[in-house]
Amino acid sequence: MNMIRIAKSFFGGIFGLLLTMQGISAGDFPLFPPIGPLPPVTFPADNPQTEAKVELGKKLYFDPRLSGNNWISCATCHNPVFGFTDGLPRALGGPASKEGGRHSPTVINAAYNEFQFWDGRAATLEEQALGPIQNPNEMCETLDNVVRKLSGIPDYVKAFQEVFGTGVTADGIAKAIAAFERTVIYANSPFDRYMQGDVRALSESAKRGMDLFQGKAECIKCHNGPNFTDNKFHNIGVPADGPLKEDLGRYNVTMNDTDKGAFKTPTLRNVAETGPYMHNGYFPTLFEVVQFYNGGGGRSENKSPDIHGLNLTGQEVGDLIEFMKALTGEMVRITYQSAPLAFPKVPVGF
Amino acid sequence: MNMIRIAKSFFGGIFGLLLTMQGISAGDFPLFPPIGPLPPVTFPADNPQTEAKVELGKKLYFDPRLSGNNWISCATCHNPVFGFTDGLPRALGGPASKEGGRHSPTVINAAYNEFQFWDGRAATLEEQALGPIQNPNEMCETLDNVVRKLSGIPDYVKAFQEVFGTGVTADGIAKAIAAFERTVIYANSPFDRYMQGDVRALSESAKRGMDLFQGKAECIKCHNGPNFTDNKFHNIGVPADGPLKEDLGRYNVTMNDTDKGAFKTPTLRNVAETGPYMHNGYFPTLFEVVQFYNGGGGRSENKSPDIHGLNLTGQEVGDLIEFMKALTGEMVRITYQSAPLAFPKVPVGF
Repeated sequence: MNMIRIAKSFFGGIFGLLLTMQGISAGDFPLFPPIGPLPPVTFPADNPQTEAKVELGKKLYFDPRLSGNNWISCATCHNPVFGFTDGLPRALGGPASKEGGRHSPTVINAAYNEFQFWDGRAATLEEQALGPIQNPNEMCETLDNVVRKLSGIPDYVKAFQEVFGTGVTADGIAKAIAAFERTVIYANSPFDRYMQGDVRALSESAKRGMDLFQGKAECIKCHNGPNFTDNKFHNIGVPADGPLKEDLGRYNVTMNDTDKGAFKTPTLRNVAETGPYMHNGYFPTLFEVVQFYNGGGGRSENKSPDIHGLNLTGQEVGDLIEFMKALTGEMVRITYQSAPLAFPKVPVGF
Repeated sequence: MNMIRIAKSFFGGIFGLLLTMQGISAGDFPLFPPIGPLPPVTFPADNPQTEAKVELGKKLYFDPRLSGNNWISCATCHNPVFGFTDGLPRALGGPASKEGGRHSPTVINAAYNEFQFWDGRAATLEEQALGPIQNPNEMCETLDNVVRKLSGIPDYVKAFQEVFGTGVTADGIAKAIAAFERTVIYANSPFDRYMQGDVRALSESAKRGMDLFQGKAECIKCHNGPNFTDNKFHNIGVPADGPLKEDLGRYNVTMNDTDKGAFKTPTLRNVAETGPYMHNGYFPTLFEVVQFYNGGGGRSENKSPDIHGLNLTGQEVGDLIEFMKALTGEMVRITYQSAPLAFPKVPVGF
């Protein structure tokens, strides 16, 4: 066993070195898609990207009139100020701002997700965008009402005509918001700069953390590829917390018993800015997260066999955290704009 | 009477022309402070303006952790997207996001107000800033809790040390937020450009509106001076609306019977972007506002004798609205920034 590990280490190390020279990294687990720089964003054929569409999507993203009480926008829970999430364990929402069951996922780099939502029930950003609008625990509005409201706002009507050649439609709303979200890409993290040759971009601690990530701590088994996620669903035994006493996660979508309590592997890019952590925001800081894995995760019938105790030392815990902090990219530059005005309007004939 | 009006018109007109040539305007009422360009902002002696203080104030302004549920920031109700108000008749707030009694006043150019709040109970921006934080119907938090929360966020501790030479304090929070608000100045409206010589900056309708504003419609009797407010309190008989069945306004501060139902004259700069209108957001658009004044205002025991029917024609109503739309200045450029992170923190000793 020891010899095999040595050989694996050796060849893994050589392979890793070769991969590192190409700007990608695989550590001890060369069979997983290596971590490395993100490829360019891809755009769906039925939603080509244009500047006008992105501008419209940005207006919609920041507009609370998409909600029932005209007070909650996408940006409320996916707030640029908090890494495009809200800094809360579980989102607040609905007409009385009650706590929901799950932590708001980040919009940063969501363009790379194969699935949206913790249970992966939406395949695209377009599908996701209309979900919270209609959820009574979130924005609590009907699509008909949103269309009606926006249709009374001349600058929106004009923008939809220009971008889609139609009036205001739910489909257009979804496409425009998705187009804007495809610009919310944080690139050029210290990790990326290191992988592109800047050997000083990572501290010594973060470099040790990177090795642990791909080695002893085994994070790369799920957090792999350029976006640090395998886009799969795993049950790691996170304890229940908040109003949902039991959250079956992916099972709700597939009805597959083995998916009970399984949740999507989130990206770790920008993880330092997008806490609290896990589907229900159970862990306030990365320290608790790493200690959770160190101790072998939680208890659950369906728990993944890949999760087991790690025997990390205190320094190794700290090094992993330093590496994860190095996954924070540069914030995209977004400037506040005035919302399209519904008023003042002078009735026709005056 | 007629001759006096003609003489007044004539001399008022000449005076008005002379004033206009100097970039200020007084119309038929030369005894009121003329409308015209804003002077430079003044800064209080005990809160000198520095770039670092403004940056800190901006972070605080956009930080929901100043509220009890960590979800409501100053920017929630004083939202740059809606003219630094929220587009609602009355603000929502408190732990269950209930509707309050009054419309959120705009922060734009609030630096020029002699009093803050509709009842003028705060003399300065500094005094105002801590009010909503502690109001159970708004941000519903205690100052002790805010100080405690921010003191656990290293970048805030560092910023307070740099700006004030102290730890996090409520006084520092108020001063920093006020310093940021003193930069929220929208200048260069079409009106301002017209008054500085660009004769095409106002449409013909807006020019007629400007004459009406200072003449037949008598707006200038209260909406005068460079900030379009006399900084006084008047009862114009706005009907009650929303949860407050009776709002005594300025009386709550002075205990003076004649102040019952009197509210501060708000600025009209940027009025097109800061509806709905009046202390309780009663009027959705400027059209209803002008028609309200046209009909002689509302009913109230204490109603100001200055309010009476105006006999404006339909075109005159439209012209006044066009003039008021021309009071919209250029939005200050504000870019989103990441909030200072509380996490991840690794406990000392690890």
